[in-house]
Amino acid sequence: MDRPVPDPDREPLLLTPGPLTTSRSVKEAMLRDWGSRDAAFIAMNRRVQQRLVELAGGQGTHVAVLLQGSGTFGVEAMLGTLVPRAGKVLILINGAYGHRMVQICRTIGRAHAALEWPEDQPVDPQAVAEALGADPAITHVVVVYCETTSGILNPLAQVATVVAAAGRRLLVDAMSAFGALPCDARGIQYDALVSSFNKDLEGVPGATFAICRRTALKAAAGNAHSVVLDLHDQWQFMEKTGQWRFTPPTHVVAAFDRALEEHAAEGGIEGRGARYQRNCQVLIEGMRAMGFRPLLPDALQAPIIVTFHRPSDPRFDFNVLYEKLAARGYLIYPGKLTKIDSFRIGCIGRIDEKDIRGALAAIREALGEMGLRVPVPAAR
Amino acid sequence: MDRPVPDPDREPLLLTPGPLTTSRSVKEAMLRDWGSRDAAFIAMNRRVQQRLVELAGGQGTHVAVLLQGSGTFGVEAMLGTLVPRAGKVLILINGAYGHRMVQICRTIGRAHAALEWPEDQPVDPQAVAEALGADPAITHVVVVYCETTSGILNPLAQVATVVAAAGRRLLVDAMSAFGALPCDARGIQYDALVSSFNKDLEGVPGATFAICRRTALKAAAGNAHSVVLDLHDQWQFMEKTGQWRFTPPTHVVAAFDRALEEHAAEGGIEGRGARYQRNCQVLIEGMRAMGFRPLLPDALQAPIIVTFHRPSDPRFDFNVLYEKLAARGYLIYPGKLTKIDSFRIGCIGRIDEKDIRGALAAIREALGEMGLRVPVPAAR
Repeated sequence: MDRPVPDPDREPLLLTPGPLTTSRSVKEAMLRDWGSRDAAFIAMNRRVQQRLVELAGGQGTHVAVLLQGSGTFGVEAMLGTLVPRAGKVLILINGAYGHRMVQICRTIGRAHAALEWPEDQPVDPQAVAEALGADPAITHVVVVYCETTSGILNPLAQVATVVAAAGRRLLVDAMSAFGALPCDARGIQYDALVSSFNKDLEGVPGATFAICRRTALKAAAGNAHSVVLDLHDQWQFMEKTGQWRFTPPTHVVAAFDRALEEHAAEGGIEGRGARYQRNCQVLIEGMRAMGFRPLLPDALQAPIIVTFHRPSDPRFDFNVLYEKLAARGYLIYPGKLTKIDSFRIGCIGRIDEKDIRGALAAIREALGEMGLRVPVPAAR
Repeated sequence: MDRPVPDPDREPLLLTPGPLTTSRSVKEAMLRDWGSRDAAFIAMNRRVQQRLVELAGGQGTHVAVLLQGSGTFGVEAMLGTLVPRAGKVLILINGAYGHRMVQICRTIGRAHAALEWPEDQPVDPQAVAEALGADPAITHVVVVYCETTSGILNPLAQVATVVAAAGRRLLVDAMSAFGALPCDARGIQYDALVSSFNKDLEGVPGATFAICRRTALKAAAGNAHSVVLDLHDQWQFMEKTGQWRFTPPTHVVAAFDRALEEHAAEGGIEGRGARYQRNCQVLIEGMRAMGFRPLLPDALQAPIIVTFHRPSDPRFDFNVLYEKLAARGYLIYPGKLTKIDSFRIGCIGRIDEKDIRGALAAIREALGEMGLRVPVPAAR
């Protein structure tokens, strides 16, 4: 049996929606200090920006703006910069990240409306079309491409189509999707899309980026509610100088530069997406074989993170499972659903199906130690 | 002669106000991925927060809030969180960082007044007392402890005394000072002080922190203009969970944890300050011997970064000097003064007087190649 040996000093595999497991070579790119105004670092920024625009299919139409902070910093920066102070944004909600955008709009003072669906259902483009028809004050629509609350994939292309047909602007939270799922600006019309250095592109956490339509960003001067989160000014300064406006996370940028190289070497979005798809498939099959039940049907499941129902056996305790897996070198995530007791296992980061099989073996062992029958009786 | 051998692959020494040269061991602390919700990472956050409060002398009165982003993110977060929407802040300006706070207050919508001094003069506590007497609407005063625009040291303790005497609240931008200069909350009354992981504490860039008076921060709920820059919510969430609200820059935090250990091993603020003081002294003596003239008299010079007048010789070209030093492995900084042509050399980061002597030798060589007499004739 492929019993993993518990080793507290071993670096755990992060089966989470981020921070993720990254390659050794990405981390080694941080073993050097960079001067933020030096030519070599400026060239690195340009290279990173160019690669991001290419991955977004935005050559000639879109630009990449790099920003310090986590993904939510990017989302707030996008909403504050792209939605004018007199604008109104329609927020499509089927999870925690949609709700967080409501909180952001309320705090930064942007008029907003919301459409909400249950956490296990995708947003409905037809309902979006109707809402836009009913409220001419709405200037922008914002959607979460993959909602990691559940792991659900929202129909981005169809939403983009109805938003464009209604003559409104689309903003996308593509946090956990960009780099492994298609987001091509030539097919999907968006004014801005935000993601993170540390999701599917497998850099380390510490910075975020927005792919913005050049004309929309240019028109956004003076919109922002914040100096540091002003994507327009951040872009203009970097255009002129090649430098970040404020001290950049140089080591994080160097790691990202390396991570983008490794992403290209793996076959870009297609290659990365295929590995995650395989991870997801092996995970779901293995968990199903143990009696666990995923929240979502396969057609709605993004290959990013999978939510499983908590087993009905009262002896199942997530914290015990977490600790037993952590001791074996695997970190998983608690559930984030509001109404259903669940837990989550991620498929992204520098992990492959061998790692997923290792995690499955560890889960089987842990369940045995917890006195749960294997296979566990599924809920319902 | 101690001629440095140019080596393009050699990691340059960063004689700048940040990013800085950090120790190899600090960088090596980034060679591991951390789960942001894992017990080991939570313990690391607690340790970092505790060390920061101790360095600030704030045990029992102050708390440390960690935040993603550069130092300016911390400054904007401090102003947005600690100054109520109906408050008014008096900004003391003698350099670019004071002006930047005016820009922040204007953008985030906080009433403000400003007192301004020339870039080579410290702020004047007496003038602050008078301004506070004349305008009862002012609730807060904000001062930059060491203005790296010039390298000048502002009289923080005296400013704190007049602000307290007038019954107002003090906020401090201690970006380049904290960790090497005294900022003890037991002697200097402040409601908040902001600094960065990557200044005198010699971590890598990517995060900032605020040391806040607990009562002031508690009273600041709901003030902030931004979700991600809300220090109150960031603090409350970390108090409850030990976790950051949004994905933390885990590698940057691990490097900082290590950097704080090395700071303690060097003798804390006193030890670190003594090394910087020695670096500064060797630098100024060496540059004076070559005929360069520092902007500031010794009494106003903080041991952080030194501004030198541009020599009057028309053959002197800063960009040429920069490139020649870069080729020898030393990165310096252009001047930032508005009216005087100058350049800057930093004394902070993991460098000692041997490194400064190396830089001085490289400058001497570069000047020779530029056809400038050594010693260079000083301006005036």
